Amino acid sequence: MSDITFRVKAHSENPTKTIAKARGFEAIIDEPGELNGTNDGPNPVEYTLIALSGCLNVMCHLVAKEMNFTLRGVKMNLSGVLDPDKHFGMKTAERAGYKRIEVEIIPDADADAATLEQWLKTIEERCPVSDNLNNPTPVLIKLK
Amino acid sequence: MSDITFRVKAHSENPTKTIAKARGFEAIIDEPGELNGTNDGPNPVEYTLIALSGCLNVMCHLVAKEMNFTLRGVKMNLSGVLDPDKHFGMKTAERAGYKRIEVEIIPDADADAATLEQWLKTIEERCPVSDNLNNPTPVLIKLK
Repeated sequence: MSDITFRVKAHSENPTKTIAKARGFEAIIDEPGELNGTNDGPNPVEYTLIALSGCLNVMCHLVAKEMNFTLRGVKMNLSGVLDPDKHFGMKTAERAGYKRIEVEIIPDADADAATLEQWLKTIEERCPVSDNLNNPTPVLIKLK
Repeated sequence: MSDITFRVKAHSENPTKTIAKARGFEAIIDEPGELNGTNDGPNPVEYTLIALSGCLNVMCHLVAKEMNFTLRGVKMNLSGVLDPDKHFGMKTAERAGYKRIEVEIIPDADADAATLEQWLKTIEERCPVSDNLNNPTPVLIKLK
């Protein structure tokens, strides 16, 4: 297949609240009160986990179909840990973003443990959002 | 400050549609019809751009305040290019995720060009979502 370009347009509604549009869909991003926000939606780093959960679900079903076993559904628990110091401009040796992301996948499937381990390995290799987190992805930002 | 843990719980509603919950908020992730989905929400890689837009907005305002100039708002155009072959299991040398992400920021600000260039540099250095994309972030996935 040829390359696909995905596009999002966004604008600030206030210093922490953003309205983002992807095709006909709108998403609201905000910060909770503890992070000085107006708490009208998940915050940016929560959306990173949301993106990952959606991508893993697609991969779970695609790979189960290829491997020829029945997958009725998946549940996922995702978490990420970060130190907000760099974000807030404090002197720190820590990075700005998540230090690590952990995901538990609970499949409802007709497959043995070895099959599920192979399934998980394939999912990890081919999941676009996992790839963009695990490996460097150039982000080119310019003013217009 | 000490580390903060962010959590999302998610489940599949069908092979392409995921319902994700972050605190009291719900997000719907799906694939468009062209990617074999039921088109009920932005897709996973669009959510990556949504996360980035929200994080950049917060950084834009935080850094403008530190630099002492008036920022009335920002508009952003985000795009990412990927080759879906690896995702679909085809033989390819390409990566699974975005090869690169491009962002245009249009500020409505009282600041000269040199100030805005310094502003952008600081935003890039301290934005958590940019960091998680630009630099490797371990994603640890296990079955439960």
